[in-house]
Amino acid sequence: MAKRGYDVEVFERRDDIRAAVEVKGRSINLALSHRGRKALNSIGIEDDVLESAIPMKGRLLHSAKGELKRVVYDPTFNQCIFSVGRNYLNKKLIQATTNFPNVKIYFNHLLTRSNFEEGSVTLINLKTCEEFKRNADLIIGADGAYSKLRLAMQQTPQFQYSQQYIEHGYLELSIRPQMGHKMEPNNLHIWPRGKFMMIALPNQDSSWTVTIFMPFEKFENLSTPKKVLKFFQDTFPDSVDLIGENDIVDTFLKNRPSELVSIKCSPYHIGGKFLIIGDAAHAMVPFYGQGMNAGFEDCSLLDDLLEKNRNDIAKTIQEYSKVRVKNAHAICDLAMYNYVEMRDLVNRIGFQWRKSIDHLLFRSFPNKWIPLYNSVSFSTMEYNQCVCNRKWQDRVIYKIVMTIGIIIGTIVIIFFKSFIYK
Amino acid sequence: MAKRGYDVEVFERRDDIRAAVEVKGRSINLALSHRGRKALNSIGIEDDVLESAIPMKGRLLHSAKGELKRVVYDPTFNQCIFSVGRNYLNKKLIQATTNFPNVKIYFNHLLTRSNFEEGSVTLINLKTCEEFKRNADLIIGADGAYSKLRLAMQQTPQFQYSQQYIEHGYLELSIRPQMGHKMEPNNLHIWPRGKFMMIALPNQDSSWTVTIFMPFEKFENLSTPKKVLKFFQDTFPDSVDLIGENDIVDTFLKNRPSELVSIKCSPYHIGGKFLIIGDAAHAMVPFYGQGMNAGFEDCSLLDDLLEKNRNDIAKTIQEYSKVRVKNAHAICDLAMYNYVEMRDLVNRIGFQWRKSIDHLLFRSFPNKWIPLYNSVSFSTMEYNQCVCNRKWQDRVIYKIVMTIGIIIGTIVIIFFKSFIYK
Repeated sequence: MAKRGYDVEVFERRDDIRAAVEVKGRSINLALSHRGRKALNSIGIEDDVLESAIPMKGRLLHSAKGELKRVVYDPTFNQCIFSVGRNYLNKKLIQATTNFPNVKIYFNHLLTRSNFEEGSVTLINLKTCEEFKRNADLIIGADGAYSKLRLAMQQTPQFQYSQQYIEHGYLELSIRPQMGHKMEPNNLHIWPRGKFMMIALPNQDSSWTVTIFMPFEKFENLSTPKKVLKFFQDTFPDSVDLIGENDIVDTFLKNRPSELVSIKCSPYHIGGKFLIIGDAAHAMVPFYGQGMNAGFEDCSLLDDLLEKNRNDIAKTIQEYSKVRVKNAHAICDLAMYNYVEMRDLVNRIGFQWRKSIDHLLFRSFPNKWIPLYNSVSFSTMEYNQCVCNRKWQDRVIYKIVMTIGIIIGTIVIIFFKSFIYK
Repeated sequence: MAKRGYDVEVFERRDDIRAAVEVKGRSINLALSHRGRKALNSIGIEDDVLESAIPMKGRLLHSAKGELKRVVYDPTFNQCIFSVGRNYLNKKLIQATTNFPNVKIYFNHLLTRSNFEEGSVTLINLKTCEEFKRNADLIIGADGAYSKLRLAMQQTPQFQYSQQYIEHGYLELSIRPQMGHKMEPNNLHIWPRGKFMMIALPNQDSSWTVTIFMPFEKFENLSTPKKVLKFFQDTFPDSVDLIGENDIVDTFLKNRPSELVSIKCSPYHIGGKFLIIGDAAHAMVPFYGQGMNAGFEDCSLLDDLLEKNRNDIAKTIQEYSKVRVKNAHAICDLAMYNYVEMRDLVNRIGFQWRKSIDHLLFRSFPNKWIPLYNSVSFSTMEYNQCVCNRKWQDRVIYKIVMTIGIIIGTIVIIFFKSFIYK
C-alpha cells in the first residue's frame, strides 16, 4: 500500500520485536515456498530472507527402528521449500516497512471496536490506556486467527463462518545448537506414526525446531517423567539423545499442548472499506506449510487487483473476496488432508507408487501434468485449480489402471483358453 | 429450575411483553408438536396453550392454477401439529414463572461480559445504564440465535462453531381477520414453487400469518409495485385477494427480507457452570417446525439429567452437552433438508409414493416402522435416532424394490424364452 503511494498506519498489539530481548509467542519455524517468495520479491527482500533460510529438498522419514527413507519434493526440477525463522522474517518485514516515509507503525495498540456504518475503528493504546477512533479509506484486518475485526464482521448479517479445532494439539521441543547439524540439514524430518507424528525443521545455528502433533488425550496420558521417556524411547528412539532426556520431560510436564484451528469465512470484506487478509480470513492447520504463503499471496493479489482497478478500493476488495474465498477454502481443506499424508500415507506403498507415476508424467509433460504438491508449493496456480487439477489426474490414472487391467485380463483369458483347448 | 427448588434470576433484554401494547420482533407463528407439548405439560400449561392453538392435520398444497392437494401428516393415527401465536405463548410462560416465589425476572437487562474463570457474568440495566456482576451455581444462556454467552464461549479454545446463512430470506405478510376463515383452517397451507415457496399458518381470530421464502436476489428484482403484483398474480393467484394488493405491494417495497441462519456448535457448556440451550446452542432454519420444540426439549432433558444426577450441576451439564450436541446437529440438518421437501419434493410423484409406502408399513408395524416426520414431530425419539431410522428404512425399501425388480425381470425373461422357443 505504501509503494502504491497511500499513507499507511499500522497498529500492532505486541511490542516492537526489534527492541525486545526475547520474543513471546510461537517460535515455530515457517516453510517459505513459491507464493511467499513471489510476494517478498515484489517488496525487494526475497534474497535477504533466502540467505538466512535453509533449503529443504524433501522429507526424510524416520522409522521406529531409526531407519531413514527419503521422499524428495521435486525429483524433476529439484525445487525446494525453505525453513525460515519467524522472528528473523518479522524483523525483516518491519525494517522493509520503515524505508517508506508514508508508513507509521504503532506498537502496543489493540482494536476494540469496529464501526462498519461509520467506517471507523476504535483502538486502545495498551501503554497509556487511551482509546481513540480512526477513519481511513481502507481498513485491513491482518490480525491473525483470533482476529478482532473478523469477530465484528461475524456479527453482521449473511457472514458465513466456521471454526474447527482438530482433536490434535502440538508441543514444541528443540535440538540445541551443536558443532554442525547432527541430522541431515536440507530436509524436513518426519517421524510418521500413523495416528500422530513428530517433525523437525533446521535452523541456521545448527539447532532444530521439533514439533510433536498428537491427540490431546494422548498428551494427557503422558503424565509422569517415566511415561514420557518410555514413550519417546519406544516411538522416537533416534531423537532422545539429540533433544536430551531432561528437555523432553521438562517440556512435556511443564507445558500444555497448543490448539490447532481451521477457520473459513465469507465474504472477506464489509462494504467498500473493511477487509480481512491472512490468518484473519483463513487460518489453517500447518500441515501444508501454506499458512504464511497464502497470507503473502493475499498481498500480491490485492496489489494486482488495485493495479487492475486503478486504485478503486471498493471495487477491488469486492473482487478480491470473490476470487480469494474459494481458493482459501481449498487450501484450508488441503492442509487438513495433508496431516493424514504426513503422519500416515507417506509410509504406504500406494502413496510412493503414485508419487513415482506423478513425477514420471511431470517429467514427460511438465506443463500438462503438474503434481498436486508442486502446483501448491512451486507455482502460483490458484489453490482451487490445484485441487481440480488433482481430481482430473485421479480420473486419468483410474482410467489408465482400469484399461491396463482389462487388457492384461483379456490376454490372460486368451492365453488360458488357447492352453486349455490345445 | 424453580420447581427443583433453586433460586432463579431471569435477565431478559426486552421489555415485559405483558405490559407492552405492541411487541416488536418476529410475529411469525410457531408450530408446536410432541416434544414442545411434553415440556409444557411438565410445567402444567399444555392444556392452556393448546386451547388457544389451531391444530393442523396436514399440508394443503396450492398449485399455480389455484388447485388444492392434501398431504396429511399422520393418516395412521391422525396426530397433528399446532399453530401457536408467539406472543400468546411467551406471555403464558412468563405467567407460569411468576407463580414461583423463588423466581425473579429482570427485564431490559443485557449480558455484557462472561467471566468463565471467575464464574460470573456482567450485566447492564438498559434503563439505568448501571452495570453489575452476578455469580451463580449455574448460568444458562437461553439468549437466542445471536447469543452473547455463546459469542464469549466461541472465543475459548476447542469450541467448535459454525454459522451458515442460507441464500434465501423471508418476508411476512398477513391475511387480515375475516368473518370466519377464508381458507381451510386446520392445515398448513403451502404454495410450493420449486426454488421458493409461500406458506400460511392459521390464527384463532381467523387471520393468517403468511410467509414467503425466496432467494434474496429474487426479492431485489421485485423493485416496483407493478413487478410485485405481476409476480403474485402469476405465482400465487389465489392469494392476491385474500392478502390484498395494497398490503402485498406495501410489504414488499417497505421491508427488507430477513435472514435465515443455521448455527451448530460444541460443546454446550464451559466448565461446570456455564450452559447454552435453545437457539443459543442450535439455531436452525424454520422448515421442520422444530426450533421451539427442540428448545423446550432441551429443558426436559436438563431436568431429567438433574434428577438422574441428584442435582450435581457440573456432571449434568457435561452429560447434557454430550447427549444433546449430536441430536441438535441432526435436527439442524433435517430442517435444512425439509426446505427442499416443502418447496419442491411435496409436488413429486416419488415423494407421494414413498409417503404412502411409509404409512402402509407404519399401520402394519406401528412400533417398528415409524416414518421420519412422525418420529420427529410425534415422538420423543432422539433426533439422531430418527435420522438413523430413516437411513435403515431407505435401505430396506431399496432392497425390496431391487428384489421385486429382479423377480419381475426373471419372470419376463422366462416368459419370453418360453415364447421364443415355443
